[in-house]
Amino acid sequence: MRQWISTFAEGGADQRRRLGGKGAGLAEMVRAGLPVPPGFTITTDACLAFLRQDDLPEGLVAEIDDALSQLAKESGRRLGDAINPLLVSVRSGAAVSMPGMMDTVLNLGLNEACAAGIAAQSGDERFAWDAYRRFIQMYANVVAQLPLERFEARLEQARHEAGVQEDRQISAPILRRVVEDHLALYAELAKSPFPTDPRSQLLSAVRAVFSSWNNPRAKVYRRVHSIPEDMGTAVTVQAMVFGNRGEDSATGVLFTRNPNTGERALTGEFLQNAQGEDVVAGIRTPLPISRLKEAMPECYRQIAEVSELLERHYQDMQDIEFTIEEGRVFLLQTRSAKRSSRAAVKTAVDMAAEGLIEQRAAVARVSPEEVAGLLHRTLDPKAEHDLLAEGLPASPGAAVGTIVFDAERAAEQGRSGQSVILVRPETAPDDVHGIVEAAGVLTSRGGMTCHAAIVARGMGKPCIVGCETLRIDLAQRRLTVAGRTLVEGDLITLDGSSGKVYVGQVATQEPDLGPEVGVLLGWADQMRRLGVRANADTPEDSVRARELGAEGVGLCRTEHMFMAKERLPVVRRMIMAEGTEERQAALDQLLPMQRQDFMGILRAMAPHPVTIRLLDPPLHEFLPHISDLEVEVAVARERGEEASDSYRQAAGLLRRAKVLAEANPMLGFRGCRLGVVYPEIYEMQARSIFQAMAALRKEGVMAEAEVMIPLVGMRQELALMRELVSRVHAEVSHATGVTMPLVVGTMIEVPRAALTAAEIAEEAEFFSFGTNDLTQTTFGFSRDDAEGKFLPAYLERGVLSDNPFATLDRDGVGALMKLATEQGRSRQKKLKVGICGEHGGDPRSIALCQELGLNYVSCSPYRVPVARLAAAHAAMAAEEVS
Amino acid sequence: MRQWISTFAEGGADQRRRLGGKGAGLAEMVRAGLPVPPGFTITTDACLAFLRQDDLPEGLVAEIDDALSQLAKESGRRLGDAINPLLVSVRSGAAVSMPGMMDTVLNLGLNEACAAGIAAQSGDERFAWDAYRRFIQMYANVVAQLPLERFEARLEQARHEAGVQEDRQISAPILRRVVEDHLALYAELAKSPFPTDPRSQLLSAVRAVFSSWNNPRAKVYRRVHSIPEDMGTAVTVQAMVFGNRGEDSATGVLFTRNPNTGERALTGEFLQNAQGEDVVAGIRTPLPISRLKEAMPECYRQIAEVSELLERHYQDMQDIEFTIEEGRVFLLQTRSAKRSSRAAVKTAVDMAAEGLIEQRAAVARVSPEEVAGLLHRTLDPKAEHDLLAEGLPASPGAAVGTIVFDAERAAEQGRSGQSVILVRPETAPDDVHGIVEAAGVLTSRGGMTCHAAIVARGMGKPCIVGCETLRIDLAQRRLTVAGRTLVEGDLITLDGSSGKVYVGQVATQEPDLGPEVGVLLGWADQMRRLGVRANADTPEDSVRARELGAEGVGLCRTEHMFMAKERLPVVRRMIMAEGTEERQAALDQLLPMQRQDFMGILRAMAPHPVTIRLLDPPLHEFLPHISDLEVEVAVARERGEEASDSYRQAAGLLRRAKVLAEANPMLGFRGCRLGVVYPEIYEMQARSIFQAMAALRKEGVMAEAEVMIPLVGMRQELALMRELVSRVHAEVSHATGVTMPLVVGTMIEVPRAALTAAEIAEEAEFFSFGTNDLTQTTFGFSRDDAEGKFLPAYLERGVLSDNPFATLDRDGVGALMKLATEQGRSRQKKLKVGICGEHGGDPRSIALCQELGLNYVSCSPYRVPVARLAAAHAAMAAEEVS
Repeated sequence: MRQWISTFAEGGADQRRRLGGKGAGLAEMVRAGLPVPPGFTITTDACLAFLRQDDLPEGLVAEIDDALSQLAKESGRRLGDAINPLLVSVRSGAAVSMPGMMDTVLNLGLNEACAAGIAAQSGDERFAWDAYRRFIQMYANVVAQLPLERFEARLEQARHEAGVQEDRQISAPILRRVVEDHLALYAELAKSPFPTDPRSQLLSAVRAVFSSWNNPRAKVYRRVHSIPEDMGTAVTVQAMVFGNRGEDSATGVLFTRNPNTGERALTGEFLQNAQGEDVVAGIRTPLPISRLKEAMPECYRQIAEVSELLERHYQDMQDIEFTIEEGRVFLLQTRSAKRSSRAAVKTAVDMAAEGLIEQRAAVARVSPEEVAGLLHRTLDPKAEHDLLAEGLPASPGAAVGTIVFDAERAAEQGRSGQSVILVRPETAPDDVHGIVEAAGVLTSRGGMTCHAAIVARGMGKPCIVGCETLRIDLAQRRLTVAGRTLVEGDLITLDGSSGKVYVGQVATQEPDLGPEVGVLLGWADQMRRLGVRANADTPEDSVRARELGAEGVGLCRTEHMFMAKERLPVVRRMIMAEGTEERQAALDQLLPMQRQDFMGILRAMAPHPVTIRLLDPPLHEFLPHISDLEVEVAVARERGEEASDSYRQAAGLLRRAKVLAEANPMLGFRGCRLGVVYPEIYEMQARSIFQAMAALRKEGVMAEAEVMIPLVGMRQELALMRELVSRVHAEVSHATGVTMPLVVGTMIEVPRAALTAAEIAEEAEFFSFGTNDLTQTTFGFSRDDAEGKFLPAYLERGVLSDNPFATLDRDGVGALMKLATEQGRSRQKKLKVGICGEHGGDPRSIALCQELGLNYVSCSPYRVPVARLAAAHAAMAAEEVS
Repeated sequence: MRQWISTFAEGGADQRRRLGGKGAGLAEMVRAGLPVPPGFTITTDACLAFLRQDDLPEGLVAEIDDALSQLAKESGRRLGDAINPLLVSVRSGAAVSMPGMMDTVLNLGLNEACAAGIAAQSGDERFAWDAYRRFIQMYANVVAQLPLERFEARLEQARHEAGVQEDRQISAPILRRVVEDHLALYAELAKSPFPTDPRSQLLSAVRAVFSSWNNPRAKVYRRVHSIPEDMGTAVTVQAMVFGNRGEDSATGVLFTRNPNTGERALTGEFLQNAQGEDVVAGIRTPLPISRLKEAMPECYRQIAEVSELLERHYQDMQDIEFTIEEGRVFLLQTRSAKRSSRAAVKTAVDMAAEGLIEQRAAVARVSPEEVAGLLHRTLDPKAEHDLLAEGLPASPGAAVGTIVFDAERAAEQGRSGQSVILVRPETAPDDVHGIVEAAGVLTSRGGMTCHAAIVARGMGKPCIVGCETLRIDLAQRRLTVAGRTLVEGDLITLDGSSGKVYVGQVATQEPDLGPEVGVLLGWADQMRRLGVRANADTPEDSVRARELGAEGVGLCRTEHMFMAKERLPVVRRMIMAEGTEERQAALDQLLPMQRQDFMGILRAMAPHPVTIRLLDPPLHEFLPHISDLEVEVAVARERGEEASDSYRQAAGLLRRAKVLAEANPMLGFRGCRLGVVYPEIYEMQARSIFQAMAALRKEGVMAEAEVMIPLVGMRQELALMRELVSRVHAEVSHATGVTMPLVVGTMIEVPRAALTAAEIAEEAEFFSFGTNDLTQTTFGFSRDDAEGKFLPAYLERGVLSDNPFATLDRDGVGALMKLATEQGRSRQKKLKVGICGEHGGDPRSIALCQELGLNYVSCSPYRVPVARLAAAHAAMAAEEVS
């Protein structure tokens, strides 16, 4: 048994961590008796050892020599042999797929003598020199890290001199000259001659692949996809087979099902007389796999058979690379296919229906973010639109944004909150940080499996590729198509599901989820333990939330109701009131409006509970901005209009706004502080809630309202408010003769509430974590100020690994939630505990909520399906732990 | 042994909780053989039982009867006996003195028959009817709770009919008519006749005194003085002696030392031919005690002897009430004297010097707030002033404020942050809430021991009483003196040390502490375990802090240095900079200025450490206000001045200010967030600190700077900043060749820092609790917004018992401090932990810091003496516990 190396015959799918996805997949295929060119895998352990000591670990070279001997036996060719030379590919392969992120060298083993040998053996001199030319370029780029463009420029020149358009039209003698030219260029740039010893070529290539684990684009990719840093990559060394040996050769990539729709049909592309990287790089636009049936029917049959076998073997949709060398099919790689959200759901549900996997596995296999991806809005078919161009629908969903022509700028503007569409001829791994921040991606080249397509699909972002009618002028920062010119900053709309690009903004509509989602979420509901509620402030939201599976409203904010156009004057009258009596008069006017609001929401959600939060924002939010008023007053004064009514009104509002102004509104006179000082406001709200509930119950609608007191930090605050609400409850019950429950609870959204939760729990039926505010106060930064100013730098410099407003901060906020839940329940055994911050719709946060023993999460209606699935995952994870 | 009652002969000073201060003091005097009228005390246990069941406890009445029999034996008189009637006083007496807060009934035992008996026995009919008249009034007021004014009005009428000015001039026949009149009035108001049975008079009076424990002014007093609610009051029943039996009778109050200066000289007042309440109530202005020497030399000698005996007995300055009845001296009460801060310190130090008490006791006896009282500013003798009037200097210190004529308004305006002077003819217990919020008190009547004087002294507030030239017109809300009229809202200045009242604001100056403070604090320093540092931003502050005993600077803020007039333009240039280079140029200009600042402070404090906090506030604080700029720009536009330079400059500042504007500056881009994003700013500051330290060390000054990183919430923030500071330290050490310590630590001022303190401690040599911000983030309210808007209501409604910005919140903020200290030290054993929020100068907060095991507190220079004493008290308390 070797320490650092495993031949394909020795490995298997279960050794993924050690052999990488590629190495394990090849070994597994060999084990299954499939046609795989022979080879071996240098393990991730060797990579980690190399990265630690910056040198190949002891014993590895000897093991490589040994493996090469065995490879010679299996392939009948020998590395460096002039008569019967073996060429190998050297590829990276990490345990978690990182497509295109690390480096690959093909055709390794060539030098003058071997090239001549290949030419003689194959009878195809052109092929031999072309292979040698390709090898030099790749080696120069990947191993010696020389600029690829310099080599490409020479090739371009050769095409020019030969008077041809495509590389494959270049003749053997010219290619031979290109090789000589490349060797000279290499020596010049590298300041040392090109290595002619195939064994030392191999060792250098292994080193380069190992090192590529730490290249910047790989690091960015790992950060974006939360892949650990200390996994390392394996290196697979495999005998080359050639798809570019003539028209009976081909190379291709296929998916066992449609990665976009999930339909059960082979989907993919191939290129005749080409090497694999030609497909992946998107330089030539390939043909759909169905065309292979006509071109090479027997090969197609073989491939279809193997595909089915592999899918059954792995119980998952596969992404397969194959090469046909002179009519013989070879499999080069298989892996679980990246797929669109829709395909992920459909595949999982279908496979469970087909009996391939269990329901549990189907639920586990779809990520909450994939379900989120399905919730993308689509274009409204009835909306006016101005079609600009059409490309391949690489990743579904609609995106509207301004055109940006490079990843840098896309990243920058995206981070600053703009919606941008990254438009490129093609994308490369260097562009990933721009894709992360863009709303969508549009390329003029590439196929469904090109870089842009794969990355965007993985991120659930709309993407259109191969939109070949676009002429992109990067230097002038503009694009032209059919005589129209758009410049950077112009607005366009992508429909990633149809591949259509529109000028300007096209109206979008609710997403159509497809029938499989409902089935999958139904299974998820049976597995999860957390309840899922929605945050909804209107009857419409409540209806939508129920449709999406919400089991109640976890947060109904009342402030938006105050903002309605016809109410704002009344609300302002309340705020401008000089005393309790005047304020009461305004409140009396608001009462029936509020009751109407609550009736709508309670009716929509009955018999599920609706948690209504009493007024939370500071009162000045209902007045015009102070600086607008100041300018209005100053300008009026300048014009000598002090006598006008509008001046007097503005001056009055300004006076009051100044009294109410706060240095830090987040930390100001809001939440239950309003209720303690102006009990009449909360009293009006409580009265309208109970009146609404009573009216509905008289109708036979089992409305369930829960009253939530915001921003409590001291037990006594809640005690006072509870007393008030209880009194109103008793009054309304008495007046209406309706018996109804009295459920009063509080948000836990300042640290002090968590720290003194035991005491507070004595006044509460429930706690609901307001994690937006709790995060702000725990960290001591406000979301608006942080995200606009320093949070990007914090994420970039690794001060924070996640945006704490998106994913719960386990160590800080999580610690307070744990304390509050434990302390609260220690005093009030049946205390219901939920979360209603935005984190309630974030899968990792939901997992934390499950861990902390919460009863439910509440999130925006559109996140409800995501939360249902995430809760099921969290429950399964919890079962595994226990 | 009786259950509910203790006769004077049975009790003693050690039974204060059970017998109250008055009962225990009388018993102790009896035990010491002093002349005390006989009596007994109904215990606080009886009071608590009464309050619980709203009825006298079982057995009490029988015990009272028994005690009355014994009293009859001792006094030779019997309650209700027509021939030889006994009159008693019924007084409240709590364990902790609450002067004037609860009720008293004198002359109890009178009815028609007994009054006649007294008249016959004393041969003074006028005295008998006057006593009866007084008794009816007091009983009506205290027991039956009838309005005193109605009785006073009848007496007034009697004076008018008799054509006399003073009560003592009213003749016996008229007084007898007044008595009848009073009895009729009583029956009318109470709707039942005046009780004529002395025993039932007594039982009702006992009930009334017990109930008075819960009257509103007593509750306010207890809240202000942090006295527990569940102590109850005792009732002392004592045979009456009469100071109003003619010119050989008198009544008085004296202090064994001067309660204002601490000088060892009898100080007090007496009134001839008067009852005790005439002195306390301030109705007649009494004579100084020294005049008693001339009036009744033998009595004076006896009193002086007894005073010395009592002081030695109690080892403390005594406040003694006495009555002289026809030449015989009786002591009615003795208690530890309330005294001015200066007197408290001088008395404690003197008594230790006299060998009366130990140093430890001397330190224990002075409260930190008394030392704080000494730190009051005094009037600048060189300042211009406009003397208005002169009264008695009842409580020292200078106060400037606007005149307010009632306690309600004083409380209201004081709470809203105005400085007000409460001006009244005299004050009563009902006025306490106004005195609490006033800056000072001025009365036109009363002596040094009147209500206003005692209460103000206890609170350390300037107070002038007996300013008899003032004519106060409460109805018109104005005062006149010597032809000048001032109205409510006018500004005056009080000098409580001289008794002078000035019109307008008079400049004040540093306080003169007197030599005893230094001695006392020296003793305290030997006892305390907490270090005491000062918060100082300038060399001047640092010098002052050292003089006051600071052992280092715990917080040196650098932002004020940036605000200096000549620097602001440079600072603004730095802020307006378009890129790092431009910013660096401005920073290069600031560097030598900062170095100069630090050299001054480090030099002043060497060899003590100076903890320098790097820049903390958000950058927009250094720009003009955004709304000012907006108005400037709008007005200039209105005037068509868009071409002017000033318009352009304002517009530029406005643009930048808008970019930097924050919704919540408290929670914004500040603290180490600035340092992470603009490392060049912190680098400049670190460089100037180390350059300053190096330069001083080269001079032989052992400067010690510690670098403090503000607002850390994540370990990685501190790690990055620590790396930066270490690098600069190494560079400066290398460049200057000076070896100097590298001490880097952080403020703990957001909850997350406390929650993750173990990790953060790995990057820190010290923690310093920034409890101002920590309180704000823990409660989720900002100090400015809270104190201006809802905190007063919270304190009033008992939502909070203390202002958490003045006294540390034990349950919330304290819990985080405990966690941070324990967690920090678990990872970094030698971690130095301090506090630099304003709480560092608050005695109760200092006690908490001691309890949590902090190493030092840091406070404003003027609080340093307070902190030194408070730390000694905390150490003594800790020793007692352990």
